[in-house]
Amino acid sequence: MSEYIAPIRDMQFVLKELAGLDQVAQLPGCEEATPDLVDAVLEEAARFAEEVLSPLNIPGDLEGARWHNKAVTMPAGFKQAYKLFADSGWTALACEPEWGGQGLPKVVAAAVAEMWKSANHSFSLCPLLTNGAIEALVLTGSEKLKKDYLEKMVSGEWTGTMNLTEPNAGSDLAAVRTRAEPQVDGSYKVFGQKIFITYGDHDMAENIVHLVLARTPTAPEGVKGISLFVVPKFMVNDDGSLGERNDAYCVSIEHKLGIHASPTAIMAFGDHSGAVGYLVGEENRGLEYMFIMMNAARFGVGLEGVAACERSYQRARDYARDRIQCTDVGVRGGPKVPIIVHPDVRRMLMTMRAHAEATRALAYVVAAAHDAAVHHPDANERKRNQAFVDLMIGVVKGWSTESGVTMASMGIQVHGGMGYVEETGAAQHLRDAQISTIYEGTTAIQANDVIGRKIGREGGATLQALIATMRALDAELAETAGQPGSHLVAIRKRLAAGIDALAEAGDWIVATYRDDVRAASAGSVPFLTLLGIVAGGWQMARAALIAQRRIDGGDADPFYAAKVVTARFYADHILSRAGGLASSITDGAVGVMALPEDMF
Amino acid sequence: MSEYIAPIRDMQFVLKELAGLDQVAQLPGCEEATPDLVDAVLEEAARFAEEVLSPLNIPGDLEGARWHNKAVTMPAGFKQAYKLFADSGWTALACEPEWGGQGLPKVVAAAVAEMWKSANHSFSLCPLLTNGAIEALVLTGSEKLKKDYLEKMVSGEWTGTMNLTEPNAGSDLAAVRTRAEPQVDGSYKVFGQKIFITYGDHDMAENIVHLVLARTPTAPEGVKGISLFVVPKFMVNDDGSLGERNDAYCVSIEHKLGIHASPTAIMAFGDHSGAVGYLVGEENRGLEYMFIMMNAARFGVGLEGVAACERSYQRARDYARDRIQCTDVGVRGGPKVPIIVHPDVRRMLMTMRAHAEATRALAYVVAAAHDAAVHHPDANERKRNQAFVDLMIGVVKGWSTESGVTMASMGIQVHGGMGYVEETGAAQHLRDAQISTIYEGTTAIQANDVIGRKIGREGGATLQALIATMRALDAELAETAGQPGSHLVAIRKRLAAGIDALAEAGDWIVATYRDDVRAASAGSVPFLTLLGIVAGGWQMARAALIAQRRIDGGDADPFYAAKVVTARFYADHILSRAGGLASSITDGAVGVMALPEDMF
Repeated sequence: MSEYIAPIRDMQFVLKELAGLDQVAQLPGCEEATPDLVDAVLEEAARFAEEVLSPLNIPGDLEGARWHNKAVTMPAGFKQAYKLFADSGWTALACEPEWGGQGLPKVVAAAVAEMWKSANHSFSLCPLLTNGAIEALVLTGSEKLKKDYLEKMVSGEWTGTMNLTEPNAGSDLAAVRTRAEPQVDGSYKVFGQKIFITYGDHDMAENIVHLVLARTPTAPEGVKGISLFVVPKFMVNDDGSLGERNDAYCVSIEHKLGIHASPTAIMAFGDHSGAVGYLVGEENRGLEYMFIMMNAARFGVGLEGVAACERSYQRARDYARDRIQCTDVGVRGGPKVPIIVHPDVRRMLMTMRAHAEATRALAYVVAAAHDAAVHHPDANERKRNQAFVDLMIGVVKGWSTESGVTMASMGIQVHGGMGYVEETGAAQHLRDAQISTIYEGTTAIQANDVIGRKIGREGGATLQALIATMRALDAELAETAGQPGSHLVAIRKRLAAGIDALAEAGDWIVATYRDDVRAASAGSVPFLTLLGIVAGGWQMARAALIAQRRIDGGDADPFYAAKVVTARFYADHILSRAGGLASSITDGAVGVMALPEDMF
Repeated sequence: MSEYIAPIRDMQFVLKELAGLDQVAQLPGCEEATPDLVDAVLEEAARFAEEVLSPLNIPGDLEGARWHNKAVTMPAGFKQAYKLFADSGWTALACEPEWGGQGLPKVVAAAVAEMWKSANHSFSLCPLLTNGAIEALVLTGSEKLKKDYLEKMVSGEWTGTMNLTEPNAGSDLAAVRTRAEPQVDGSYKVFGQKIFITYGDHDMAENIVHLVLARTPTAPEGVKGISLFVVPKFMVNDDGSLGERNDAYCVSIEHKLGIHASPTAIMAFGDHSGAVGYLVGEENRGLEYMFIMMNAARFGVGLEGVAACERSYQRARDYARDRIQCTDVGVRGGPKVPIIVHPDVRRMLMTMRAHAEATRALAYVVAAAHDAAVHHPDANERKRNQAFVDLMIGVVKGWSTESGVTMASMGIQVHGGMGYVEETGAAQHLRDAQISTIYEGTTAIQANDVIGRKIGREGGATLQALIATMRALDAELAETAGQPGSHLVAIRKRLAAGIDALAEAGDWIVATYRDDVRAASAGSVPFLTLLGIVAGGWQMARAALIAQRRIDGGDADPFYAAKVVTARFYADHILSRAGGLASSITDGAVGVMALPEDMF
């Protein structure tokens, strides 16, 4: 049986060498993040993930969250684990000190969150959603709302949810129909049904703070008529104690492919007297506020992809070391060997490892840019970093989660027939990972956002800047690459070709988005994949360069040699897809759109 | 809710235009397969698949096969469906007339089997395994064994199993430990445990004929000491009636990711007095005989991949037509549209459709070659066709099933959040499909067989012949392609590039298999994928050429226009991967093997 071990060494390397933790720690408000503190946080988080959350993962899947009489009971051990989680301060890690948070930078929180996700995807969703709700309230809530809710959410005593989706309003929030009727006391009564509400009910916390999209009676049609409301499960008295049960009930939970321990609720608001709600910020600006939560949640879901790659890799590797089967290839009559010796098993493990490292590197780099976008004293630097984050958040979400699904499937394959048996645990990773490409916006939603709002509308300026940054690495690679045939020479060549492919496809997207938006959209997901693969390759090349310099300087730590080799593998087996993807984008739209609907 | 509709039109097109059904029907022994009869068979099979098997698919998944007291109970309806299946003659379709079979060619049986698999993967496994056992007995069984068993297996009254795997002998059959002790009456007593035995027990037939690999006391070590035995569940009296219960029991079934209605048994042979078994053919030649079953089963499992692509496509398409969400891209304030209008949904549907059509075309073409390899009067033609079949059966198995998994995952994605809810049915296709890349030999096992026994050992002669055949299509494409910018011009260009990539990688495999078998093995699965993609593209190009000629000749059947467009899509979005794959093979081995085992 494979137990999760947090990949602290790689996390530290990425944080310090690629994401620039030292620079982040110099940002105003991030000074807490000293190297010593960060190391201690990572170690404590690893212990919690390994010792508390990981052992609950398979039992939680087997037992699942259960619904009875409008209430959800969590699997055995979850309530206790959550209490320990909150008591240990993990809910407060990256929150504002003003409300009891520890104010650590996002880049540190990202590494910690990856551990929760690898150890127990289902469990990790509760703090993910709560954090999104906290961010929305911090930025847009009234002082009264902040005072009433934030401290207990930060401490983890209460949890939060996002209530967007309705049966006919999934990706299309313009179709939201939930109503909010103003009351004389300034509050609202909310009526409507929401579906797919993660942790919409559970027994781990004494109160749940629902953030709900609804329309006021005077609201215009479409997305410009949506407001955001706080609807607590239990009313909150002025002294902070809990009052009456609010008219917000979980009327059912979904029977899903995976994340069985994460209750996915159908929520009924106002089936009796109306659910009491409080307007967040201004009327009709709900969508804008919801995107605050959504962007945080999208990044967090992207980390689920990293986590799925890592956890599937670890389980497959552990099995491949233990499982003895066949002699070494080309050796007749020799001893039986562990399957990790077999070249294709090794190819699969390298594929999983390379995806874990590349998606992690890109995600943490984006998180560090987020910290700079918020905290940098120079407005231009804030703006530049924000543009990079805006471009890449959909890539972190879409590319990492698609990688997570593919790698979890590969992890099953490494196990052979045992992978198909549920007790082995590999299949759960696939079942769990599969939701990450869907919720908080499907991969297509991310991709359309990337090519439209993030590239097309600004004529590709941020993308061009990114490409220029990537190209600047080439000279450094040339300097350190060494002899023909070296790993760095191969990496440099593949990266240059990948960047060329990205640039070509990017130019095409910019031009085509303007002239033929349907054709550009037909290439959106391949473009997101291409951008992810090349940006991941850029980070892997940076990592290899740093590692090679250490090796050349006499550092014998095998971590560096492994990093160079993994980057080499990434270049030849993953970056090598770039050219084909670019040509699918630039030439492929006609094939996507040519078949009439009725001929499908 | 999506109901399965057999894609008869495409099946007929592939059978007649690509697989050469007319030529097959002229082979000695295949004369029954007249166009009228084949059409009637397809229509009847479609009706059975749609009306009997498909409605049992989701209930079968939910209820699952259940084990109690050493016996398996099938889900409600399966026993009745199986009786109807056997009574309708479906078990006998491609079997020898001598034993009650209808003697239809394999290529027709392939189309029919695809329907069973699309309609109900779990159900289809019972006749698949039985057919493999029948083939082994027909070719290697004694007259007595044939007389005792074959007629009732062909009629479907009894079913068959393959008992290879043991806890420490999965892919490595040399490790088989089950013993067979000779008795004075010429029979054997078999002792041992087998795992992963599909339909090892069930209540749909009155007897089960287990084909079991075991070692006699004098057997040499390794694969050359394995013999094959018939071990019936119930003894068979001389008059054909059933006798005593044999000492062969199902002691448990697996809790699996999917195919819940297909019981995967742990079989205990000889826990009491020894299981009575009868030697099949000669001692110590069991592996060779088992490969007869295995090759038939591998092809059949390849069809599961075709079926998974097709069924996932149909369900996703039906949902995409019904689900209304958002306005058309680039249209503000317009009406909401079905999501099939959205470009990325269409890209996904085209990807699924193109994979279904390409994997089907390749599989049926290989099946027709199998018919020629068995029945052609000219020995050279038999040999030529057998070489092609030998090369391609692993590709049909490996590439089609990997495609099936990826397409089933994509089918979930088309559904968005609803895809993750089990009631929708899309998730079951993924759960079911995932086993097909594993059983009857993982994709890596297929790929090693392809690059080793099928290419490396003969210096690539069959592959070269295939490449020459593919290249010969280019001149025909040039003739019909028409103006620059036409679909056929684009297809021709992509196919030529794909063949070049295949040829380059093939040369590398031949040379490297000789000089560095580990490096060749590191590229085995990418090579299998490349061969599948290019061979599928070859068939799609053939299809497009035929369709374009019909269109140019004035045929207005929209099927032909759709075929050309689907082939165009395939070329730009799937064949476009060929160059990247080839370079991963030729340059990528170093990255696969460079990381020391202890650094994983």
